[in-house]
Amino acid sequence: MSEFSWPVRVYYEDTDAAGMVYHANYLRFMERARTEWLRRKGFEQDQLRDRDGILFAVTRAKVDFLRPALFNQALSVSVCLTRRGRASLEIRQEVRGPGGEVCCRGELKLACLDAVRLRPRPIPERLLAELSDVE
Amino acid sequence: MSEFSWPVRVYYEDTDAAGMVYHANYLRFMERARTEWLRRKGFEQDQLRDRDGILFAVTRAKVDFLRPALFNQALSVSVCLTRRGRASLEIRQEVRGPGGEVCCRGELKLACLDAVRLRPRPIPERLLAELSDVE
Amino acid sequence: MSEFSWPVRVYYEDTDAAGMVYHANYLRFMERARTEWLRRKGFEQDQLRDRDGILFAVTRAKVDFLRPALFNQALSVSVCLTRRGRASLEIRQEVRGPGGEVCCRGELKLACLDAVRLRPRPIPERLLAELSDVE
Amino acid sequence: MSEFSWPVRVYYEDTDAAGMVYHANYLRFMERARTEWLRRKGFEQDQLRDRDGILFAVTRAKVDFLRPALFNQALSVSVCLTRRGRASLEIRQEVRGPGGEVCCRGELKLACLDAVRLRPRPIPERLLAELSDVE
Repeated sequence: MSEFSWPVRVYYEDTDAAGMVYHANYLRFMERARTEWLRRKGFEQDQLRDRDGILFAVTRAKVDFLRPALFNQALSVSVCLTRRGRASLEIRQEVRGPGGEVCCRGELKLACLDAVRLRPRPIPERLLAELSDVE
Repeated sequence: MSEFSWPVRVYYEDTDAAGMVYHANYLRFMERARTEWLRRKGFEQDQLRDRDGILFAVTRAKVDFLRPALFNQALSVSVCLTRRGRASLEIRQEVRGPGGEVCCRGELKLACLDAVRLRPRPIPERLLAELSDVE
Repeated sequence: MSEFSWPVRVYYEDTDAAGMVYHANYLRFMERARTEWLRRKGFEQDQLRDRDGILFAVTRAKVDFLRPALFNQALSVSVCLTRRGRASLEIRQEVRGPGGEVCCRGELKLACLDAVRLRPRPIPERLLAELSDVE
Repeated sequence: MSEFSWPVRVYYEDTDAAGMVYHANYLRFMERARTEWLRRKGFEQDQLRDRDGILFAVTRAKVDFLRPALFNQALSVSVCLTRRGRASLEIRQEVRGPGGEVCCRGELKLACLDAVRLRPRPIPERLLAELSDVE
């Protein structure tokens, strides 16, 4: 059972004057990895929005910033589904530095929302099915 | 005839590992000032979008980055309308540092677009009227 | 006992294609408020860095995203110190919408770090003193 | 003679409530491509900063935003060196959409700066040499 992970390079845009990745940007990195994880499973988020009428919104994030990631480093961001609800997902993610050290660890809760009304909606069956037997 | 200007504080989020404001972020500062300039004239952009069905998109930007603005500095961003077309505006903006020195200077062209189809549309008359006799 | 709060306006830069404030950006809003809270107490972060040789880094964030904040809304971001350690602070923050509703709530832990080596350092006494008797 | 280009995916973080890539973010995409172009030539920017003591700062940008790039699109960003000075470079870049259409075109001028004093410095010889015979 292998965990999905996605490479992220640290550019100037990601850093701040303290010389490290700006803390809020780890949440961006994590979302990139979740997007690619869904894509790997066959789900494009623009189609989920336009055809299925849904989007996933982060409703809770618990993030530990453990070590600073630095300019120009090649990071990798993992995605591990830990709970699958009817209308929400829980995902654990780690951002690892070039030597494999964990820079940042997050537990995220995502809600499936109606893309227009931004109200909770059940996750489409074909997506649920794809998520059920993987992790 | 006084020029509109808007204060912007430099936070960590705005800087990069080179210790200065990340160049793309001056464009953000300029947009904040344009938004407040329109608000001062009585136009809220969410209403322009929802009631008038339009939005303004930057179609051209010529920006000179003259001096680095630094973390924690209090900047001011000016807005000067230089040309008013039927469906576009040209605006000159300067980002000045705490001593009044120009850090960044931009000439921007904005197009009035249909908010849904993202196609050019004439600027609403009541907005044009408000823009005509001010600068 | 009044809580510190800081106004934040939602610009296009803060939103995403789902029509709401991009989740990571609430962490930016919260940092703006913390910066202004420290400034109100008389501490400029560039001086803390350059004279005292320290900076504050977020080491943990627990954030609940409760309601979407929308384009052009005028938000307010509160800051409430909940724990003061020798080398760390814990702060609770809320981002409230135009009607006072809580859009986002965060509990943040900040570490005082050596600004160069990015290692833990005690919070300077004069800053500790200022924090002790306020909240 | 093939032009360097680098793939960029549009994530939620890159878009705004108008449904398209936020204009300032094209400058980020362009910098990512320039960074990868230098890396392809054998130059890592953290080493240029730490060993050679230099960094490249954008001093001028002329950008035309021609077509909106949209959420989830796979873009490609080209890099073409158009002028090589002693202490500056001029680069032309295009951001192309999934069908090859140009969404955004930029002409950028970069200055080589001392990484600490942020003052102009000659481009290191070994980098100049690598740039001379390529485009």
